[in-house]
Amino acid sequence: MSRVFRRLSSTTTITVKATPSKDHFHRQLPTSSFPKGYLATGIHVGVKKVAGVLDVGLIISTSQHPASAAACFTRNAFKAAPVVVSDQILSQNGGRARAVVVNSGCANAVTGRQGLDDAWAMVRETDALLPPLSSSSAQNHTLVMSTGVIGQNLPISKIVQGIRSQAAEDRSLASDFAAWERAAKAFMTTDTFPKLRSRVFTINGTDFRMAGMDKGAGMIHPDMGPATTSFGPLHATLLGCIFTDAAVSPRSLQSALTYAVERSFNSISVDGEMSTNDTILVLANGAAQQNNGQVVEIDEETDKQGYEIFKTELTQFAAELAQLVVRDGEGATKFVTVNVKGAPSYEVAHQVASRISTSALVKTAFYGEDANWGRILSAAGSISVPHLDPSKVSVTFLPSDKTASLPVLVNGEPEKVDEIRAKEILSLEEFGICVDLGGLGNEEATYWTCDFSYDYVRINGDYRS
Amino acid sequence: MSRVFRRLSSTTTITVKATPSKDHFHRQLPTSSFPKGYLATGIHVGVKKVAGVLDVGLIISTSQHPASAAACFTRNAFKAAPVVVSDQILSQNGGRARAVVVNSGCANAVTGRQGLDDAWAMVRETDALLPPLSSSSAQNHTLVMSTGVIGQNLPISKIVQGIRSQAAEDRSLASDFAAWERAAKAFMTTDTFPKLRSRVFTINGTDFRMAGMDKGAGMIHPDMGPATTSFGPLHATLLGCIFTDAAVSPRSLQSALTYAVERSFNSISVDGEMSTNDTILVLANGAAQQNNGQVVEIDEETDKQGYEIFKTELTQFAAELAQLVVRDGEGATKFVTVNVKGAPSYEVAHQVASRISTSALVKTAFYGEDANWGRILSAAGSISVPHLDPSKVSVTFLPSDKTASLPVLVNGEPEKVDEIRAKEILSLEEFGICVDLGGLGNEEATYWTCDFSYDYVRINGDYRS
Repeated sequence: MSRVFRRLSSTTTITVKATPSKDHFHRQLPTSSFPKGYLATGIHVGVKKVAGVLDVGLIISTSQHPASAAACFTRNAFKAAPVVVSDQILSQNGGRARAVVVNSGCANAVTGRQGLDDAWAMVRETDALLPPLSSSSAQNHTLVMSTGVIGQNLPISKIVQGIRSQAAEDRSLASDFAAWERAAKAFMTTDTFPKLRSRVFTINGTDFRMAGMDKGAGMIHPDMGPATTSFGPLHATLLGCIFTDAAVSPRSLQSALTYAVERSFNSISVDGEMSTNDTILVLANGAAQQNNGQVVEIDEETDKQGYEIFKTELTQFAAELAQLVVRDGEGATKFVTVNVKGAPSYEVAHQVASRISTSALVKTAFYGEDANWGRILSAAGSISVPHLDPSKVSVTFLPSDKTASLPVLVNGEPEKVDEIRAKEILSLEEFGICVDLGGLGNEEATYWTCDFSYDYVRINGDYRS
Repeated sequence: MSRVFRRLSSTTTITVKATPSKDHFHRQLPTSSFPKGYLATGIHVGVKKVAGVLDVGLIISTSQHPASAAACFTRNAFKAAPVVVSDQILSQNGGRARAVVVNSGCANAVTGRQGLDDAWAMVRETDALLPPLSSSSAQNHTLVMSTGVIGQNLPISKIVQGIRSQAAEDRSLASDFAAWERAAKAFMTTDTFPKLRSRVFTINGTDFRMAGMDKGAGMIHPDMGPATTSFGPLHATLLGCIFTDAAVSPRSLQSALTYAVERSFNSISVDGEMSTNDTILVLANGAAQQNNGQVVEIDEETDKQGYEIFKTELTQFAAELAQLVVRDGEGATKFVTVNVKGAPSYEVAHQVASRISTSALVKTAFYGEDANWGRILSAAGSISVPHLDPSKVSVTFLPSDKTASLPVLVNGEPEKVDEIRAKEILSLEEFGICVDLGGLGNEEATYWTCDFSYDYVRINGDYRS
């Protein structure tokens, strides 16, 4: 129970354990599980200085059906140029877009007029790669994303030249796993592995496919919403995009994405930091149905059942992608699931889970493998929950290895905790904590977070030098 | 501009610079600057295991005027027993109290019925030390505070015995500097120096004195209010108490304290963590006037001018005490003043300053002495400020050595920053940053924070073991 009172009185060395390898989260996936009607690639144009490191990614729809698109953007006041431009395109096109272009290495944020011009140039050049469609105009089919350092301009001529190379004979745009993997790699900044997943799902007897990629390891605590809404106080660069060969109406695609993002990307935290660039995009090109003649878009009003299946698939898929970001969190040695239940509303449960997941004291205790439930309770209590009765609150540690859970606080009373068992659970790379607010309601929320380690300080104490 | 991409692939050692010594903030103060009519001491009773380390503090008023008292308590839902008890006493006595008892080493938080009984026992025993007053009842004159580990019961018989020893002939209660210093030492947990200050001020030609002590180094991001009000979402253990020999009406003492706490203790952050025990108390015993016959209490309605002087003195004094906590922040190597101006309201300015001051990315950049203004801007932008125009926002670094300030963003446009000069400023132990929101109004707020270092992780990654 003695605490380390002293500060470091002289320059000293600290022994830091290795961060577990995350390589096994990078998986080989069957090409047949990827959505039809897309071409993807990643190329090196020189935004990043190291030769051969992919820094521009392209995913384009080749479907004759004009793909619908939806997005959730950062609520940060200082929105980066690509966020402003993508938002504008989606709104002008009534929720239709056919391509995504991304660069890593430079965020194109706080770059004024030049930044907007550069983002539009990326759109224009990618548009030129798209097959012509009889049913839509020739302009602004591309959504754009950037990630990297803030306050620097893009080397736009290198990027333009790179995108144009994909119109040449030796272009690398393709539809196999390796092509999708190149695109995912082009997203990476401090990521240690490319984050790419795919899945096959069935609606009304028809098979559809979904592929998605994301990036992010630090500055991760997104709070994103559809561009047209305005929310309260907010909170990464997190970029992600999901592509499906289902056909979904723009309106229903947006409402499914908004629901999914709240329960996935808006429910993760590495360091509590919202970025100027956070963006999640989804494209639905209907290519799975194209052989059947006319494409019918799934819509929440006309096909409630189909919509609900799609929404559930999208939410689960988004959660899987979101979790990859936490697993790769800067300096992270633990993956922790925080569940808050017994809440009067999802919002309250989400707010309490978020506060626990961002607490520096809780996260350093995780790093120290210390079952310090007092810190969890104190963090939870810093959120104002009406009618909360401390004498009904319970806290439980949940091991990931299917062994017995460990209650540490039951109805407001501390348990006699077996410290050896507690240490066993906390020494796992994955575990969970459950906070039961004690019957205020039946709502619950789940958040995913990581620990706070020496390596986070190392990585971020010396970013630009 | 290259970032450290890799994680630590094997167990390694990190060289950590020494935390600067804070000893010079512990000052010898003239006894004449301490308020009249108080006796103070600190004793060792055995809450802390190391022999001789002070763990119970006592400050009692000997004034014949029944002292008025005011408090700001944590807004945490899991209020510790001493918070509940002190709140109840203040409310029952109409804002009157004559003593403060504090223990360190155990927070008496999440301790159920036993915890409340123990807190009441501390009150009763301290009451017994007070000189009888003709004008008030014999019970519950003492406010109680605790700080330390959550979820453990107090060794109450040791504490009771210790307090009783002060009724014996060899008691250590006294009014000289050394006695006040003993009291301040009894507050300490992870603090590296006792935090004690005094000052003399004048109202309407009469000299008054004020003394104050506080403690705290981690779990510091208080959000405290008077017990009877209910605020929105909240956010240390921070304990502080201030004693004056002025006479102030209970109502005006509370309103002056509420104002002062907002601009001092509620404007500091070490790690963004609100505690279950945060408490600031103030006692005003009127002893300075006692030789003049009848005591007239300062009141905001009957003596506006006198009240305003008192409020200003209290606010400045509270800010000085609050800053000591940040200077001694766990692992802190920097003391940073964050000023946000051009805001439409104090609340907005305070909210933006708070967000910058708690950002892990901003604070690790401070540790790395990196003028990464993009992180400051991104943190500021995560607060929803209506009508904010990014093209009007400016950010400036302010050195503490009176050399020229360094603008890094002017009206939304990044400056060509002289990185050598930036490094010079950030290598100082103290500096400031100013964020101008660009003419949304004339309101401003100041926050005090520290950096986020390896040593914070070391101290908190292994608290209980």
